[in-house]
Amino acid sequence: MVGTVIQHIERAEHAIIDGLARCGVATVHEAQGRTGLMAPYMRPIYAGARIAGSAVTISAPPGDNWMVHVAIEQLQPSDILVIAPTSPCEDGYFGDLLATSAQARGCRGLIINAGIRDVRDLTEMGFPVWSKCVSAQGTIKASLGSVNVPVVCAGAQVNAGDVIVADDDGVVVVRRKEAANILSLSREREEKEAKSRERYLRGELSLDVANMRGRLVEKGLKYVDTAPED
Amino acid sequence: MVGTVIQHIERAEHAIIDGLARCGVATVHEAQGRTGLMAPYMRPIYAGARIAGSAVTISAPPGDNWMVHVAIEQLQPSDILVIAPTSPCEDGYFGDLLATSAQARGCRGLIINAGIRDVRDLTEMGFPVWSKCVSAQGTIKASLGSVNVPVVCAGAQVNAGDVIVADDDGVVVVRRKEAANILSLSREREEKEAKSRERYLRGELSLDVANMRGRLVEKGLKYVDTAPED
Amino acid sequence: MVGTVIQHIERAEHAIIDGLARCGVATVHEAQGRTGLMAPYMRPIYAGARIAGSAVTISAPPGDNWMVHVAIEQLQPSDILVIAPTSPCEDGYFGDLLATSAQARGCRGLIINAGIRDVRDLTEMGFPVWSKCVSAQGTIKASLGSVNVPVVCAGAQVNAGDVIVADDDGVVVVRRKEAANILSLSREREEKEAKSRERYLRGELSLDVANMRGRLVEKGLKYVDTAPED
Amino acid sequence: MVGTVIQHIERAEHAIIDGLARCGVATVHEAQGRTGLMAPYMRPIYAGARIAGSAVTISAPPGDNWMVHVAIEQLQPSDILVIAPTSPCEDGYFGDLLATSAQARGCRGLIINAGIRDVRDLTEMGFPVWSKCVSAQGTIKASLGSVNVPVVCAGAQVNAGDVIVADDDGVVVVRRKEAANILSLSREREEKEAKSRERYLRGELSLDVANMRGRLVEKGLKYVDTAPED
Amino acid sequence: MVGTVIQHIERAEHAIIDGLARCGVATVHEAQGRTGLMAPYMRPIYAGARIAGSAVTISAPPGDNWMVHVAIEQLQPSDILVIAPTSPCEDGYFGDLLATSAQARGCRGLIINAGIRDVRDLTEMGFPVWSKCVSAQGTIKASLGSVNVPVVCAGAQVNAGDVIVADDDGVVVVRRKEAANILSLSREREEKEAKSRERYLRGELSLDVANMRGRLVEKGLKYVDTAPED
Amino acid sequence: MVGTVIQHIERAEHAIIDGLARCGVATVHEAQGRTGLMAPYMRPIYAGARIAGSAVTISAPPGDNWMVHVAIEQLQPSDILVIAPTSPCEDGYFGDLLATSAQARGCRGLIINAGIRDVRDLTEMGFPVWSKCVSAQGTIKASLGSVNVPVVCAGAQVNAGDVIVADDDGVVVVRRKEAANILSLSREREEKEAKSRERYLRGELSLDVANMRGRLVEKGLKYVDTAPED
Repeated sequence: MVGTVIQHIERAEHAIIDGLARCGVATVHEAQGRTGLMAPYMRPIYAGARIAGSAVTISAPPGDNWMVHVAIEQLQPSDILVIAPTSPCEDGYFGDLLATSAQARGCRGLIINAGIRDVRDLTEMGFPVWSKCVSAQGTIKASLGSVNVPVVCAGAQVNAGDVIVADDDGVVVVRRKEAANILSLSREREEKEAKSRERYLRGELSLDVANMRGRLVEKGLKYVDTAPED
Repeated sequence: MVGTVIQHIERAEHAIIDGLARCGVATVHEAQGRTGLMAPYMRPIYAGARIAGSAVTISAPPGDNWMVHVAIEQLQPSDILVIAPTSPCEDGYFGDLLATSAQARGCRGLIINAGIRDVRDLTEMGFPVWSKCVSAQGTIKASLGSVNVPVVCAGAQVNAGDVIVADDDGVVVVRRKEAANILSLSREREEKEAKSRERYLRGELSLDVANMRGRLVEKGLKYVDTAPED
Repeated sequence: MVGTVIQHIERAEHAIIDGLARCGVATVHEAQGRTGLMAPYMRPIYAGARIAGSAVTISAPPGDNWMVHVAIEQLQPSDILVIAPTSPCEDGYFGDLLATSAQARGCRGLIINAGIRDVRDLTEMGFPVWSKCVSAQGTIKASLGSVNVPVVCAGAQVNAGDVIVADDDGVVVVRRKEAANILSLSREREEKEAKSRERYLRGELSLDVANMRGRLVEKGLKYVDTAPED
Repeated sequence: MVGTVIQHIERAEHAIIDGLARCGVATVHEAQGRTGLMAPYMRPIYAGARIAGSAVTISAPPGDNWMVHVAIEQLQPSDILVIAPTSPCEDGYFGDLLATSAQARGCRGLIINAGIRDVRDLTEMGFPVWSKCVSAQGTIKASLGSVNVPVVCAGAQVNAGDVIVADDDGVVVVRRKEAANILSLSREREEKEAKSRERYLRGELSLDVANMRGRLVEKGLKYVDTAPED
Repeated sequence: MVGTVIQHIERAEHAIIDGLARCGVATVHEAQGRTGLMAPYMRPIYAGARIAGSAVTISAPPGDNWMVHVAIEQLQPSDILVIAPTSPCEDGYFGDLLATSAQARGCRGLIINAGIRDVRDLTEMGFPVWSKCVSAQGTIKASLGSVNVPVVCAGAQVNAGDVIVADDDGVVVVRRKEAANILSLSREREEKEAKSRERYLRGELSLDVANMRGRLVEKGLKYVDTAPED
Repeated sequence: MVGTVIQHIERAEHAIIDGLARCGVATVHEAQGRTGLMAPYMRPIYAGARIAGSAVTISAPPGDNWMVHVAIEQLQPSDILVIAPTSPCEDGYFGDLLATSAQARGCRGLIINAGIRDVRDLTEMGFPVWSKCVSAQGTIKASLGSVNVPVVCAGAQVNAGDVIVADDDGVVVVRRKEAANILSLSREREEKEAKSRERYLRGELSLDVANMRGRLVEKGLKYVDTAPED
């Protein structure tokens, strides 16, 4: 089964994808019941990027980026590459040449559970990357992997065509079929939050806004003036 | 004892707090005999912030931010929230809504031995955070903790009302009663360093400025021309 | 052997050193056969710096920066300090005073397998540092180490006078005698990459540019339309 | 979807499961093309156990073991519990009471991407556990999760009814439908290895047994007498 | 304040200390409301030890074990040494000579947030240690610390004379004044658990023993036969 | 230079090697001035082994164990294999077949800055291993490395023919030419320690045995009865 490139994958609609990007990782993750988040060690190489796109997945051998070259041919505009090595690896699979090629095909960014390099070039190009680490250590092109097969990346299951949302808070995966639904739940959440935000700005407390005082008392919360004698 | 909110805490004077902020973490930490530093994994979400404030402490269950809502009511202008989960946790306890509410009450920032989220919003709001990690994974509101009890946060003991100083070098805790004394020791240190800095700028060596040559010879330091034959 | 300062070391020519800086870590590392890279946990304190220089090495006891003071006297313009503690340590060996003194002597930056502090000052001074961590925890001046002896720093062997290249991708060491050769190999590499980059910008694929299709088929790569039935 | 207990799952035949246990993790993992391995941080609480069983999966909130109680009712003889918290957690979800209950229902062991406790009791009971860590820190029973849904545990996708194989080398997951096939591939591998082992015991080299010399020469391997002059 | 040895400390009664040892870490930790646990990275050097004793605390500079020598004079029978370096350190502070001396004075074991060495000798002597790591790297005797001052060790506050309980599950601290109370709460807990254990051995489920079914239904738990269609 | 096998290396005398094994890692490391120690994450797969031997070094690509096969031919009785991947790797390079082959040639054990597998078999064979981790994930045989070239392994420089000493405390490297000298220094150390041990067993304190009291007073150590008022 290793050594397979799946060429046709279903993708979510662009409008949905872009809507999810605007909502951001924290909101989308809450909206889908706190599932699909990658591990917090996945960090952006520069601050401020917020993207979404359809996952083109790569299952790659450790220290071997041959399949990345293969996967780039499968990219369509607004796709995001997702690279999952089959064993823990910190090598730099991806640099400015691959980014140039991917960007030329409309790729919006890279998610990789390993290392990348050429950070300064990638930053100047505006090609965002979320990775486990940065490493100048290159990779070889000796063994096959697969493209567009299901992978586990940084603790999250990703199927080709799933929507990836990534920003300064991390990376979350939305199942393609659920994307429209999650978008509308995310927007509801945003509206609700906008209202709360206004009240908080005026100095109201979440204890009142969210009506928590009763339940806290029930649980036994005690307000005391000063610390009890030891 | 869990489930207690202590409402009245002593705080240091504003002038002392602000003086400590200007001195910064490294100087204050030296001035108080190299004590009170939190672990180096506590990193700011953006570079350049330098704050000090009175600690409002939160002992919170892992993955449960209910007590943060409770604590915000206890905030006074120039306080700093200090959140210590009772077991290791990377969840995102705090985001832009809580920050909005805390900032509305004059809170200067957050120190948390766990995760936070909405990094981009917090950065835009100028609400500085020092945390163990960033994670979009939210928390629940199911169990009580306590507010303004003594906590251990990232290896440092913090009592409510202690002065927290935080900048790009990390986070240090100053006991409230010692704050005035530590401030004056910090300033002495700064003056002394300013003088040394000028001499170093002119090219003088610390070997001479700090009179180290004699002691080095005593200890047996040898200057040789080239590496000895192996 | 501890307690030795070697005063005369050979250095590479400035033109070679500066040429290596322009090539950057990833290119130089590839050009010398993927050797000499420090561990990926060595991170710059601010983004964007790219330097090269001759290594002045320091073998220091854990938590003791006395030998850094000694080493600064040995610095010549365009040198880089390389500090390797003899056991794992996260203390802040180096701050703005030492940086002022080192910079006054023409030092271009610091590589340290431990902590540093005064990050904000160092950033404002434009004194770049690659370190294991940031820590306000200071060090003592009680025990001798050595200067300009061979050290292992973050997994890489460094001899005094070796060329250090450091940028956002990490830190690589080039043996002094090989520096000229590695520079010319790096430049060849850059030229070749520049040509590839142009082709990728035009939308060509590395599969064709690098002629990979035949070898992929030989290895058994299969292109399928859709995922096979489970 | 959170809050679901799937009661009927398909399981592999006992003979197949027990056959896989005898082959062990390294052999099974090789036989299925180096897939399905959990992260190496998953370590056994005592040395020497080697088990296989059908996965009863638990998706649990961080710091909350309520669903473990629910899952135990679903256990059948020779099942293995697989607990995956929905965010990183080191709390002790499982101790001797739950182990007593699970063992009473024929459960063969536990795989958990979090902490466990009562190590001494579990060892005396002969109830093997592979976990991320050991922690006496208990959990609460406040939020729902799910039982027998697909989970990602320590980097590996696990479906209920998949065969888990665990020994001193770690934990590997075999898809239920492929279990018979993987068992026969594992046995082939074992036979082949037995023959190689005999030859190695007699002093033969893998260079000859596996006929590597030609390929090494082709790749350019050079045998030299002594180290070249530097 | 650094450089102080407090010679007279209050200790808990031997009967209470020994009672807590028999209960073990997990039970004691639960009995005192899940507080006082050290970080899970504190591991025993050999399996099976279970001890309790009065804390003789050492605040030590990183890489300097001079104060351990000083502290040994303060030991009384059934005390436990607790060593907390003032900054993160992995050096080996303690080996078989210090253990011989400590054991000769009746010391029951060592808790250290750093490294130790001579593991084989300590194991043969039956001198149990819980440490952050093992390291042959020795320490110096150059700087003062303090003995029997309050310390934070692996995330837990320890005062001299507090009761330390340690076993394969980790290390927990009990305040001296609360020790008698915690012991009786621990024993209640043990009795209750003994009864539950018997019921679990007979095959009863915690769902019934602890009466959870109603609350689970209330929360919305759903039992389904098979996985829902995707 | 990659792709070289150096066939003739100098080795230390067997009597010296075996003498160093008997002294153990902590003593040898002290005797040679606290140098040459590998990082503390290098742990034995089973407790109690204590070996020494001549290093046969392997510089291997990440995830590729081809050169291990090549190196085994170079082994002579009482050698120890030292494997250093050229970038961080946790794959299992080595298992029972390679161990069988190495043991057949008189190899005494393996030091590897990566993963190994077949832990149970290796333990039963009495083939000791010190490794970064255990992982069933296998490696490929696609790229060349080198044998008997200098390597950096877990932070320590190792030349072929250096003496490796390994036990429960870790791994230390002794330069071949210094081995005889280090052995005699180690023995002196042992004799001195034996005398101290006897005195400690009788209850004497290191404060007196090593005459520390004067220097402690000089440094300002204060003995007080009870904790000072806060």
